[in-house]
Amino acid sequence: MAHVSFSELQQTIQQAFLQAGVPPADAAVCARIHTESTADGVTSHGINRVPRFVDYVRRGWVDVNAKPEPVKQLGALEVWDGRRAPGVLNALWATERGIEVASEQGIALIGLRNTNHWMRGGSYGWHAASKGFVLIAWTNTESCMPAWGGKDPRLGNNPFIMAAPREGGPVVLDMAMSQYSYGKLQVTRLKGERLPFPGGFDGEGRLTDEPGPIEESQRILPMGMWKGSGFAVMLDLLAAVLSEGLPTNGIDALQQGSCVGCSQIFIVVDPRKLGGASAVQGIADSVVDYVNASVPNEAGRPADYPGEGAIRRRERSMRAGMDVDDGVWAEVQALAADHLVSDTQPKEDDE
Amino acid sequence: MAHVSFSELQQTIQQAFLQAGVPPADAAVCARIHTESTADGVTSHGINRVPRFVDYVRRGWVDVNAKPEPVKQLGALEVWDGRRAPGVLNALWATERGIEVASEQGIALIGLRNTNHWMRGGSYGWHAASKGFVLIAWTNTESCMPAWGGKDPRLGNNPFIMAAPREGGPVVLDMAMSQYSYGKLQVTRLKGERLPFPGGFDGEGRLTDEPGPIEESQRILPMGMWKGSGFAVMLDLLAAVLSEGLPTNGIDALQQGSCVGCSQIFIVVDPRKLGGASAVQGIADSVVDYVNASVPNEAGRPADYPGEGAIRRRERSMRAGMDVDDGVWAEVQALAADHLVSDTQPKEDDE
Repeated sequence: MAHVSFSELQQTIQQAFLQAGVPPADAAVCARIHTESTADGVTSHGINRVPRFVDYVRRGWVDVNAKPEPVKQLGALEVWDGRRAPGVLNALWATERGIEVASEQGIALIGLRNTNHWMRGGSYGWHAASKGFVLIAWTNTESCMPAWGGKDPRLGNNPFIMAAPREGGPVVLDMAMSQYSYGKLQVTRLKGERLPFPGGFDGEGRLTDEPGPIEESQRILPMGMWKGSGFAVMLDLLAAVLSEGLPTNGIDALQQGSCVGCSQIFIVVDPRKLGGASAVQGIADSVVDYVNASVPNEAGRPADYPGEGAIRRRERSMRAGMDVDDGVWAEVQALAADHLVSDTQPKEDDE
Repeated sequence: MAHVSFSELQQTIQQAFLQAGVPPADAAVCARIHTESTADGVTSHGINRVPRFVDYVRRGWVDVNAKPEPVKQLGALEVWDGRRAPGVLNALWATERGIEVASEQGIALIGLRNTNHWMRGGSYGWHAASKGFVLIAWTNTESCMPAWGGKDPRLGNNPFIMAAPREGGPVVLDMAMSQYSYGKLQVTRLKGERLPFPGGFDGEGRLTDEPGPIEESQRILPMGMWKGSGFAVMLDLLAAVLSEGLPTNGIDALQQGSCVGCSQIFIVVDPRKLGGASAVQGIADSVVDYVNASVPNEAGRPADYPGEGAIRRRERSMRAGMDVDDGVWAEVQALAADHLVSDTQPKEDDE
């Protein structure tokens, strides 16, 4: 493991994105989001995704110069075409657009179609909540999980986000539909360990906590089994209907990369229209305090509210730096160094 | 088990509600909803809840003559006070109000506070979808499940509903936050069986598929473990914030019955504003077909889309009647018979 500071990580990722042709202001934003995700402990969608993003840009699956275009604007309901711009920029833009519309209308639903991987969905929850807004958002993805009762991957691992503002720490839920990510399976297998709870079926249809056989069968377990399976279907259907975009089967048919062409929904509410900030704060505090006051299952480990662990990890990362995989770090440094070499050449899109 | 037809069940429940003082038109609506839930296989929130509803009316926890009153009307965003009217009537009313507002604005969010148990949440999904609308709805409840990492009940088993219209069968997700309901635990224990998968912790904190020890410890398992726990917290927080109503801790503090004074959210979208009915139909069909085309885990048992099982059960119930628990059936018949006895007396509210 390499040990790096927040600023070193951010600068290196930013250089890698500049080298890939991302305009400077956008490269800075994307680098911040990837670095924050890493700092919060979501390394899989932080630094680990940088090489794949650069690869997608080079393949032409991500258009670094595209901007969303309006399809429909109907008061509180809008549909936008993401035009395959970088998913992080599109999703941040849609969140901001939702905030703008909700500030006027009280509520906004922004459907964003034809976009790209938004990396960590929680980023947009933290963003909206830190500005005082409620966000409910989700995306569909390509298939990577069987439906309950089926054997072959037919469902996206569609992340679902809910976020609410709160002084002292926003409350942010960010969950994908599988019990464990493929990243968690891989890390657990490489350590020679078992999962804390069963995470899928092996090739013979037996529920198992061994990661290897699940990776082979691709029969990863939906969270809550039939419940997560049904939830994944609904999120896909509504993402596509409400953005007039592609469902999972359409993304699969494209046969391009992960989430290329996907559909996303951003519902934003302005709670200032509802009882005001102090009423919201009072409710949020009472909910958080009630959870935190649980009799702990393990002495000294109180029950967390959603997002509490991320805040704890972020504070530690900002203070003490982060561990990142040696191979990934070398790869990102190489992508950034390419840029440094060519930095003496005049470039059109710098600034 | 008693075997009854749809119309016999509906008429008997209707009589029981009339006898409890529910105005005739409202008694008919409530009886239809309870009977439909039973027909769809959700007996726990169908006929089985009739005696408890009557009990709550008699205790004064449900006001059969109250109607919702507006708190705020801000375009697409509205807050209403349910005034402890029957939860089924309030929730149906809020769904209809959402449809009305969404028909104009494209989207509506109706926050309904100070309401009562809506029985089966899916009822409102089926209602909205059958009229061509998308519904996202949830309610909070009193505590009945520990947070992940805690031992004592601090979370509501907050149901979450998503529904979309589709000719050939709406797609309706209706899921509570626990892996199994207490009703399922009880039924499984009475049969002397084990749960298909672990459903909670025993008194010593061991995960178990034996229902009895889970009922004793009250440590029922959130679906997807930490995921369902976090989801329950967020649904509670947002239900209270968006309706300016009580969170779970406030419902607990009332120390009245199940869901008395709870907070509910109804988000309705009019998909006719989005690409039109045929585009929605095309997307919904493609999603459903993709799931149904899964390689089945068990030969002859294809993977279902959300709501498909309910449609199958409903068709069978309408054709062949339903089994209901002997004790419950006798109790509901007695509540209805009281009415028949007093039917010769003049009554104010009997049309």
